[in-house]
Amino acid sequence: MFRSEREFVDWLRSRVPRVVRGLRLGIGDDAAIIEVSHGRDLILKTDMSIEGVHFRRELHPPHSIGHRALARSLSDVAAMGGIPRFALISLAVSARVDHAWIKQVYRGIFALAARFSVAIAGGDTAVVPGSTLMDVTVVGDVRRGHAVLRSGARPGDPIYVSGSLGLSALGLRLLRSKTRRPVSDAEAARALRAHLHPEPRCALGAYLANQRLASALIDVSDGLSTDLDHLCQASGVGATIWQDRLPVPQWPAGRRVLSEDPLRLALHGGEDYELLFTVPSRQATRIPASFRGVPIHQIGEIGRAPHMVLLRSDGTKQRLRAEGFDHFRK
Amino acid sequence: MFRSEREFVDWLRSRVPRVVRGLRLGIGDDAAIIEVSHGRDLILKTDMSIEGVHFRRELHPPHSIGHRALARSLSDVAAMGGIPRFALISLAVSARVDHAWIKQVYRGIFALAARFSVAIAGGDTAVVPGSTLMDVTVVGDVRRGHAVLRSGARPGDPIYVSGSLGLSALGLRLLRSKTRRPVSDAEAARALRAHLHPEPRCALGAYLANQRLASALIDVSDGLSTDLDHLCQASGVGATIWQDRLPVPQWPAGRRVLSEDPLRLALHGGEDYELLFTVPSRQATRIPASFRGVPIHQIGEIGRAPHMVLLRSDGTKQRLRAEGFDHFRK
Repeated sequence: MFRSEREFVDWLRSRVPRVVRGLRLGIGDDAAIIEVSHGRDLILKTDMSIEGVHFRRELHPPHSIGHRALARSLSDVAAMGGIPRFALISLAVSARVDHAWIKQVYRGIFALAARFSVAIAGGDTAVVPGSTLMDVTVVGDVRRGHAVLRSGARPGDPIYVSGSLGLSALGLRLLRSKTRRPVSDAEAARALRAHLHPEPRCALGAYLANQRLASALIDVSDGLSTDLDHLCQASGVGATIWQDRLPVPQWPAGRRVLSEDPLRLALHGGEDYELLFTVPSRQATRIPASFRGVPIHQIGEIGRAPHMVLLRSDGTKQRLRAEGFDHFRK
Repeated sequence: MFRSEREFVDWLRSRVPRVVRGLRLGIGDDAAIIEVSHGRDLILKTDMSIEGVHFRRELHPPHSIGHRALARSLSDVAAMGGIPRFALISLAVSARVDHAWIKQVYRGIFALAARFSVAIAGGDTAVVPGSTLMDVTVVGDVRRGHAVLRSGARPGDPIYVSGSLGLSALGLRLLRSKTRRPVSDAEAARALRAHLHPEPRCALGAYLANQRLASALIDVSDGLSTDLDHLCQASGVGATIWQDRLPVPQWPAGRRVLSEDPLRLALHGGEDYELLFTVPSRQATRIPASFRGVPIHQIGEIGRAPHMVLLRSDGTKQRLRAEGFDHFRK
């Protein structure tokens, strides 16, 4: 279908809005040009989505692959308290896929971008013999000096998380398995949606930043244990997590889902794209129980000792280690 | 050597300057934060460098692979008339390479970035089973409204190119061949340097933009014929190129280098990263014969008829077609 790069670029260009506030020049020239509002800092992030690592063609529909690739980067902007504005899409597409598949990937990107008013400003495309890889760069902005870093958590700060934990990991396991019996249809649908079309928490992140509510903020992309560890390391603190308060997926008590412990999914399962944040304790009363329909749970507290502890339902304590995803770990 | 992502990120962080003008937050948090100067537009570009497409591990030393990956993006900023400021490096690194190789790739990036005062603001890293791929995003800036697009060329505008054409393609052929006899040692060294460590023409691009000299501007990355075609298409014009004026690599007259016609290398060889630009004819006297040691040659003229023509040395004319690199062409 695409006989040349120009045909492909023309197709891309025809699918994105031509006039976007702040975008002076979009797809088609050597680079994009954007105009920056006075008094705002820019936020830059790039995230890769790799076939065989972040998605599998036999499991993930192309629309979901595009959605998730963009969602990863939007979530990082949310994790700074910023609003995403522009995205650049680099796609190294396997020679093994057809153009209908490529278009569906882009449709997933376009749909999410439109919903978040993110303009696709450019990118790069190549056909490769091996696996497909996407790299999505997002440019966002935030009121000058209001970005929330990972490094501001202090002992005594309550720890919050938005939405649910482990739901995306559950969805992935359901995708992989033939049987979905262990969970109800409604719960399965919720888990599949969380995995295939995760919702970046941009409005919540911007609210926390603009109101200066959060002392530290990160998104849960590699799993709670790993991302909390990042936050603790950056802040030079430790944390206690309360098992009873973790928003784990709901399913019949005592049952193991696909031979997986639900607590492990919540602690170490990745790709939730929820926001994990701490709040100075005097501000804690200002954190609502839910924000725009997304529940917010306090799941623990920052401590002075530089390690993570899980307070179990039976009252015992256990060392919590980062067991989420790490690309360099064997 | 790197046992975890944190070790790798710490290594990266230790290699880049901590305090950079305009960079409020660099590597290590969810995203980078930059401060933008008032009255300037931002330029955004992302370019992939793919093993087997843009480089081969058996031909290209890792330092060169890093250098070239960044140079591609810097050249795109130059092609808008902008100054590159920040870069994000995404590296999907093959599990087959060792960490010393990765470090050399980054050293190539760091060295070029330092020379152009570009701050490495972040990126993403993953280990992949297949080939190595890098995606480099560069953020540059330009005086508001001064960026030079591809679309401003008008009939009668002289066409210029900086430096030499086909030298990088010659360098690649020398790398591939066992024998370098057809060219002198000095010419071989020049061609290898052009291929392995190309020099983006950022100062020239910024000069053309700030002085408002160029009517259209593009960089020669896919080969003169293809990039001139892009410029002509965007401007709705055609062009005549004069064979006698093309800055082809110098070698003994009549000899074919590695069975390759030197004219073909200059017309269709890619990765020169020279600037190709047009100038309103009344401004032509303001174009110097060289800029900061880099020669500038007039190689032809924009015409009204919407196709490209090569005026050969013998006075005959021949249709010139885009025969450079196109990822979608079989």
